[in-house]
Amino acid sequence: QNKIHKGRCFCAGKGVDVVLRKNIEKFEIMPPGPSCGKQEIIVTLKSADRKCLNPESKFTQNLIRRVLEKM
Amino acid sequence: QNKIHKGRCFCAGKGVDVVLRKNIEKFEIMPPGPSCGKQEIIVTLKSADRKCLNPESKFTQNLIRRVLEKM
Repeated sequence: QNKIHKGRCFCAGKGVDVVLRKNIEKFEIMPPGPSCGKQEIIVTLKSADRKCLNPESKFTQNLIRRVLEKM
Repeated sequence: QNKIHKGRCFCAGKGVDVVLRKNIEKFEIMPPGPSCGKQEIIVTLKSADRKCLNPESKFTQNLIRRVLEKM
């Protein structure tokens, strides 16, 4: 199972559970593909820092849900 | 209403309704903020081309919904 997550994944480990919403500049979603077998969600903060978000955290799930609500 | 969409928005116009899913490298979501009053969804294709997605298209909404399903 670990094998399919190898390659050029950006995120190592499960990522952070929460970031301060007001510090978010943008977030990126990388669908699974040949270079990385898992979906990755990377947040860019206003400080230009980039962090991987834990896709299983409530915060991350709500962040994505809010995207749909704002559409 | 147009006013709040001015500033440093990346997307002009409503954006494309559909892109070929297999050509998607990643997509970015910019929440509304002081520099752009609307939520923007920008897709980067494997060709490195970047396109704004129409947030109101069925395709875009399904793309985001699938993110949640894969979590």
